[in-house]
Amino acid sequence: MTKWVYSFGKDKNDGDATMRNLLGGKGCNLAEMASLGLPVPPGFTITTEVCTHYYDNGEQYPSELTAQVEEALAAVEKSLGMEFGSAENPLLVSVRSGARVSMPGMMDTVLNLGLNDETVAGLAKKANDERFAWDSYRRFIQMYGDVVLGLDHHDFEDILDTYKRDESISQDVDITADGWKEIVAEYKALVERELGKPFPHDPKEQLWGAIGAVFSSWMVPRAVVYRKINEIPESWGTAVNVQAMVFGNMGNDCATGVAFTRDPSTGENYFYGEYLVNAQGEDVVAGIRTPQSLTKKGREKEGSTLPSMEETMPEVFTQLDDLRHKLEKHYRDVQDIEFTVQQGDLFMLQTRTGKRTAAAALKIAVDMVSEGLITQEEALLRIEPQSLDQLLHPTLDPKAERNVISKGLPASPGAASGKVVFTADEAEVKSHAGEAVILCRQETSPEDIHGMHASTGILTSRGGMTSHAAVVARGMGKPCVAGAGDLYIDAKSKLIRKGDIEIKEGDIVTIDGATGEIMLGHVKTIKPELSGDFGTLMEWADERRRMNVRANAETPLDAQTARDFGAEGIGLCRTEHMFFDPERIQNVREMIFATTEDKRVQALAKLLPAQREDFEKLFEIMHGLPITVRLLDPPLHEFLPHTAEDISAFSKAADIDEDQVRLRLAELTETNPMLGHRGCRLGITYPEIYDMQARAIFEAAVNVASKTGDTVIPEVMIPLVGAQKELELMRAVVEGAAAAVFKEKGSSVEYSVGTMIELPRAALTADAIAEKADFFSFGTNDLTQTTLGMSRDDASNFLPYYTEKGIYERDPFVSIDVNGVGQLVDIAQQKGRSVNADIKLGICGEHGGDPASIAFCEKIGLNYVSCSPYRVPIARLAASQAAIREADNKTVELKDKKSA
Amino acid sequence: MTKWVYSFGKDKNDGDATMRNLLGGKGCNLAEMASLGLPVPPGFTITTEVCTHYYDNGEQYPSELTAQVEEALAAVEKSLGMEFGSAENPLLVSVRSGARVSMPGMMDTVLNLGLNDETVAGLAKKANDERFAWDSYRRFIQMYGDVVLGLDHHDFEDILDTYKRDESISQDVDITADGWKEIVAEYKALVERELGKPFPHDPKEQLWGAIGAVFSSWMVPRAVVYRKINEIPESWGTAVNVQAMVFGNMGNDCATGVAFTRDPSTGENYFYGEYLVNAQGEDVVAGIRTPQSLTKKGREKEGSTLPSMEETMPEVFTQLDDLRHKLEKHYRDVQDIEFTVQQGDLFMLQTRTGKRTAAAALKIAVDMVSEGLITQEEALLRIEPQSLDQLLHPTLDPKAERNVISKGLPASPGAASGKVVFTADEAEVKSHAGEAVILCRQETSPEDIHGMHASTGILTSRGGMTSHAAVVARGMGKPCVAGAGDLYIDAKSKLIRKGDIEIKEGDIVTIDGATGEIMLGHVKTIKPELSGDFGTLMEWADERRRMNVRANAETPLDAQTARDFGAEGIGLCRTEHMFFDPERIQNVREMIFATTEDKRVQALAKLLPAQREDFEKLFEIMHGLPITVRLLDPPLHEFLPHTAEDISAFSKAADIDEDQVRLRLAELTETNPMLGHRGCRLGITYPEIYDMQARAIFEAAVNVASKTGDTVIPEVMIPLVGAQKELELMRAVVEGAAAAVFKEKGSSVEYSVGTMIELPRAALTADAIAEKADFFSFGTNDLTQTTLGMSRDDASNFLPYYTEKGIYERDPFVSIDVNGVGQLVDIAQQKGRSVNADIKLGICGEHGGDPASIAFCEKIGLNYVSCSPYRVPIARLAASQAAIREADNKTVELKDKKSA
Repeated sequence: MTKWVYSFGKDKNDGDATMRNLLGGKGCNLAEMASLGLPVPPGFTITTEVCTHYYDNGEQYPSELTAQVEEALAAVEKSLGMEFGSAENPLLVSVRSGARVSMPGMMDTVLNLGLNDETVAGLAKKANDERFAWDSYRRFIQMYGDVVLGLDHHDFEDILDTYKRDESISQDVDITADGWKEIVAEYKALVERELGKPFPHDPKEQLWGAIGAVFSSWMVPRAVVYRKINEIPESWGTAVNVQAMVFGNMGNDCATGVAFTRDPSTGENYFYGEYLVNAQGEDVVAGIRTPQSLTKKGREKEGSTLPSMEETMPEVFTQLDDLRHKLEKHYRDVQDIEFTVQQGDLFMLQTRTGKRTAAAALKIAVDMVSEGLITQEEALLRIEPQSLDQLLHPTLDPKAERNVISKGLPASPGAASGKVVFTADEAEVKSHAGEAVILCRQETSPEDIHGMHASTGILTSRGGMTSHAAVVARGMGKPCVAGAGDLYIDAKSKLIRKGDIEIKEGDIVTIDGATGEIMLGHVKTIKPELSGDFGTLMEWADERRRMNVRANAETPLDAQTARDFGAEGIGLCRTEHMFFDPERIQNVREMIFATTEDKRVQALAKLLPAQREDFEKLFEIMHGLPITVRLLDPPLHEFLPHTAEDISAFSKAADIDEDQVRLRLAELTETNPMLGHRGCRLGITYPEIYDMQARAIFEAAVNVASKTGDTVIPEVMIPLVGAQKELELMRAVVEGAAAAVFKEKGSSVEYSVGTMIELPRAALTADAIAEKADFFSFGTNDLTQTTLGMSRDDASNFLPYYTEKGIYERDPFVSIDVNGVGQLVDIAQQKGRSVNADIKLGICGEHGGDPASIAFCEKIGLNYVSCSPYRVPIARLAASQAAIREADNKTVELKDKKSA
Repeated sequence: MTKWVYSFGKDKNDGDATMRNLLGGKGCNLAEMASLGLPVPPGFTITTEVCTHYYDNGEQYPSELTAQVEEALAAVEKSLGMEFGSAENPLLVSVRSGARVSMPGMMDTVLNLGLNDETVAGLAKKANDERFAWDSYRRFIQMYGDVVLGLDHHDFEDILDTYKRDESISQDVDITADGWKEIVAEYKALVERELGKPFPHDPKEQLWGAIGAVFSSWMVPRAVVYRKINEIPESWGTAVNVQAMVFGNMGNDCATGVAFTRDPSTGENYFYGEYLVNAQGEDVVAGIRTPQSLTKKGREKEGSTLPSMEETMPEVFTQLDDLRHKLEKHYRDVQDIEFTVQQGDLFMLQTRTGKRTAAAALKIAVDMVSEGLITQEEALLRIEPQSLDQLLHPTLDPKAERNVISKGLPASPGAASGKVVFTADEAEVKSHAGEAVILCRQETSPEDIHGMHASTGILTSRGGMTSHAAVVARGMGKPCVAGAGDLYIDAKSKLIRKGDIEIKEGDIVTIDGATGEIMLGHVKTIKPELSGDFGTLMEWADERRRMNVRANAETPLDAQTARDFGAEGIGLCRTEHMFFDPERIQNVREMIFATTEDKRVQALAKLLPAQREDFEKLFEIMHGLPITVRLLDPPLHEFLPHTAEDISAFSKAADIDEDQVRLRLAELTETNPMLGHRGCRLGITYPEIYDMQARAIFEAAVNVASKTGDTVIPEVMIPLVGAQKELELMRAVVEGAAAAVFKEKGSSVEYSVGTMIELPRAALTADAIAEKADFFSFGTNDLTQTTLGMSRDDASNFLPYYTEKGIYERDPFVSIDVNGVGQLVDIAQQKGRSVNADIKLGICGEHGGDPASIAFCEKIGLNYVSCSPYRVPIARLAASQAAIREADNKTVELKDKKSA
């Protein structure tokens, strides 16, 4: 026979904390606490399987359920020496939902169940307080009427308000027992009037009504929507907890409260919580009375004059504080608890893992290791890597008011306020004048880099999580909200429009790159502070991770940031970013306009010294660590002047007819530039460009090696390879340049040549390509674009529908699409290693900083991940977690094997 | 000991026709003919392995070579009773190259070798003609000096010219024996002066010099380039043929000639060839004398008065005609032969398979089957499927003069002349006025369709073999030259510019879509004519192919063409082409501008009747055959007005503010439209569009079924699916529409729902997708774009470099990239069939009409290929060839298995 009902309470505990799926979070922890000897009012849990059964069988309960509930209820009666429905010593119960995961506010609760015209007398007698008993009774009718009978709670409130007005009473506490009796009568009349039958008198009928209401609440629209958003399967179902009532509102020796075993904001190890004397749980939530601090320390911290529980109820407090330690020791984590004190007796009503801020999580984890509560591995696994962002970037002051006008994608974390500007140049001008600016563009392009550097934040109306703006902003560690599609950013008329709202140049806005929110005006922010705990945790992480963590960086500033955050090399140095420097772009453009190879070589020769200098700086900063330099990747079109003004200026400076400039511009314009003449296709058609870049790398490497004595480790990376022959040809160019430089300098350095794997064809033919490659770096941004056939610049028009409808669980530009893109990466690593066992494999797309993607990289055994500098700590932690989990999996597999 | 030298001639034939790789084409067939008893002057072949050895070993011969050559030479001497270097009865030889495949004009030949001041006397005596002997001697010195000694042949010609001027002689035939003696003396003096040593007197030294020169000629730049272009591996090497000289110029009982065993232009079965009395082979080529026809019939056909060989040398002719039949019977194919008649004796100098026109190939193949020479399978395998294009489209008159100014891609076969127009509207206007026009655009878009229909040919300066212009033109069977990158087509100023050349609107140009050539002015074309042989061959093909052949078609005209060419259904009906109709585009645009779902549904309702009518027509034309209808695929942007004029007109007609139109246009503009909001992404975000299309399909299907009584087979295809859930959601929309229509009509039809596989992710997750699909259609155009990361619209800037450098052997948009794209197709078919064994698999990209790609489809067992209507016959033939070859492979495999 299936067991549908699990009892808890000091005499009998059928369940425990491991049975969360069956009993729900609340139910399993009530049983666990009771087993630990904590004072838990007895009760029972109707399992989630009943819920599933109920919906699978046309809303019918299993046939054995009635008997099992009866039996469990009898056990409660027996344990307390009370009787359900008794006029003398009536047992009252609460009926609460409790799913596997918390769904706050989504489902229903009924308190004080079991009261009727007879039992109310018993309660009055027991409490020695007739007013309390009738107040409880009217609360029950109102709650039951609302939750179970589906009446409008306003109708009940109207009756209460009318009574108070008629009696000239302003506060509920001033209503007498007789007053409550009158109100109860009117409540019952209301129910009978509305439903055509009286309020149920029989406590059993009341009980089954409440149980049914809880199960029904699993399917109300708000719960369905909540589950959809939070990806909670409908099949999980909810449990129902029926528990003997205890009362925190039976007098001044009663109280109710909620607490965290440590401060959830800071993680400080002291008892953090609030209580109210003579109150029921709902009063704490209602906010009518000001809750008081549990501890003296808490009271002092808050500067409150209201006495703490430590001071007013020292005995109970001591008992509660003991339980606090007991729970932490047992659960080995911070607990979020609910308790009630009834006439001096303490009762525990709930315990669960306490939510906490990132800073608190860090401190708690490190503290608990030093307290011997948890291991370093456990500490590492407890920190959500993404949450470290909060520690590295400014955040909005939670207390500050905010006027949110729109929401875009949370593209780069941190919050920033500043004056609205519409061009990169304006950003630079205002920033030089000492003003904080937010650069607002439809989308950014490489020509905006200087303006992005000058801004405190970036806002775009188009593009996704890996749009140019997003990627560059993350690299710079600057806040960015991207793809705020309902804003119309009109750079021409210098206006942002949304409906009636108009934001002009110079107006102040605030953006929160962690949430994507855009606010009018200035909102106060809080600066990040890195504690010693951060360093400790990172040390533990580094000891445990297998994969290296590198950074994507090309400027000296980025490289230094990356080193400071613990990067072990540069995994992606995009040489084209160096080309956009205003001093160099003219030479780049002349190179593009060269009509012969000779002229192109001349223009390139002018670029060489600057490019060499860039690499020298990077080699010096990263001394001893490898730098993967990607040769020119973007289509040449990106380097050309586009506005009439720029075209005219370039035409004059280069002495090329304006029509010629426009003609070349038209020639280079592409329908799908992402799939166009870029990457190594440039190197194939203009080998002299790659030759110049390779020379610059090797000249810099030899110079720095001889100047500093450091080992300099250049890794030259060929982008967008799709066929072995491309790499073969480009490798020959690089090797030719190396040989020439080493001969000229009379000195050489070790180097390697590899390729991006960023096209499906490259992954599919990785065995052939690996014959010519020392390393593969998976460019998962482009690989995602090509594998899914989805332009990251254009996806914002439909991708939200896709995640909403569950077509892709997460934005595939943020977290690697394991089934599609991941399958290709896995094919490539297997094929690559099959011909070249020592090939070095890494990932340098945006996914390199995403914990789920990092776990995937660990699983398939990549050698390193590379991400933007500000994500390096996140990657270090995520890599350590992945290594720990993989080791655990292997242990489990080993055990399975042994037992098999 | 390796055998490096193979003798041939009546006494001894070491080789035969199967040894082409070792002996080269010429050498193996000389041996084969000799073995057949044909009169072949004896000689020997130095193998291609000697060539390979020579280049692998620092240009050294194998040590055994000298002895083997001596021995073979002695055998020739013995066979003829002559002696190499003898002053009495000297043996003279020719030394010719002969590679595995013919490389016409690429390599060198030396004739009359063995002559010197002594042997010339022997030759004079034997020929009884001193003048002939000394003429031969001077020819030898000149040829040897040029080919072996590297002297400039002009220097020799100068000597000859000076002599003739001094002696007032105008023609060579007037030079006496003494004259030739004088000239020989001056030739020898020239050699000694230039080289510092005398002309080699020793015939053996001459022989080794000539052998060395032939091997060296394998590596001269023109040969290297030729091999590169024709993809001939360097490692194949060339053989050297040394053969006893016979003379067609020893008197009027001598002759030389070339012939085909059937007419290579028409395939007619009569002896086709030319001869010259008293001449050497080079005289035929030189064109100084007019060659005469071999046969009386040939002479009459040409209307020539010069007597035929049949008439002048009836005995020799009869002997030759016998050999003609013998050779055809032996080789079972048309032969291209060379012969010489020396003093009444016939000698065969070469036989090889004769090249022929497409029409001739067809007739020859069919004739040879009825003659019992070859099987139907052999006949099928002998026709190059691509060559059928020549039979289906007009071609340029080969005799017409042409002024070629540029060359683009041969995008759609056929030749056409017409007036240059720059817009689709202008094309329509002029065409209605009865003028032939060539539509010239940078690139075409769906808005140009009506103009393309109106034109006789299309010319674009951008885009590749699968650009819009190319695909649509092929579909229409219209000539198209695409991507002529060196033309600047300026629609604004109505000019085409190339350097100094300017072509104005109204100027006449001619394009040849089979070669890509663009010519000024009108060039005469020849109309195609389909013979009964064509039908016969197609019948044989249909009996043998396993795969079905369908057509890509959406207009009634295309559908009718497809049926006429034997298509077995429509594999791709692109519904969006129907949207561009000028009468409908307004409704389409209103649908796009609808701001609510309601308004969109209203606009769609207006489109429904027209769309239904389209499908009704198609179902009627294809009665009983399946039609795969692809739901809307292109980004909505393509349907919007783009020019200021169009925007204004639409704004007025739709009563939408012009600014609003521009705003929406800007919103819908995408960076990479190929990877943007298109395909089923439109259906996901606007399900009502797909719902309307599905309704139109099912209403049409039910209407036509009840009207005609035909079985109507609609297959609804969802484009651009990347994830199972997309197909699941869209399938539900289609099924919903079907159910609704069937209920309304009270009648239903069978239908299926499937998807394009055109994204790498779809192929990689085909097992999941197949759970929801009745069929897969591989959209290899887009699959190539995404797998290779290559936009077909932009690839013309670099793809030529790619095929030139051998990165891709062939344009991957023309012939499927088997290693990359093919790998994905194979993965998808395996995964798809693993969960859905009955799933129907086809291909509908441009590759569906490419023979190599069709062979690949057969190999992996697809069910059908679909191509543009004009390629249907090509596909039918190619599919039959693939089936025959696969069956052969299986037989071989079976044999291998049995013998293993």
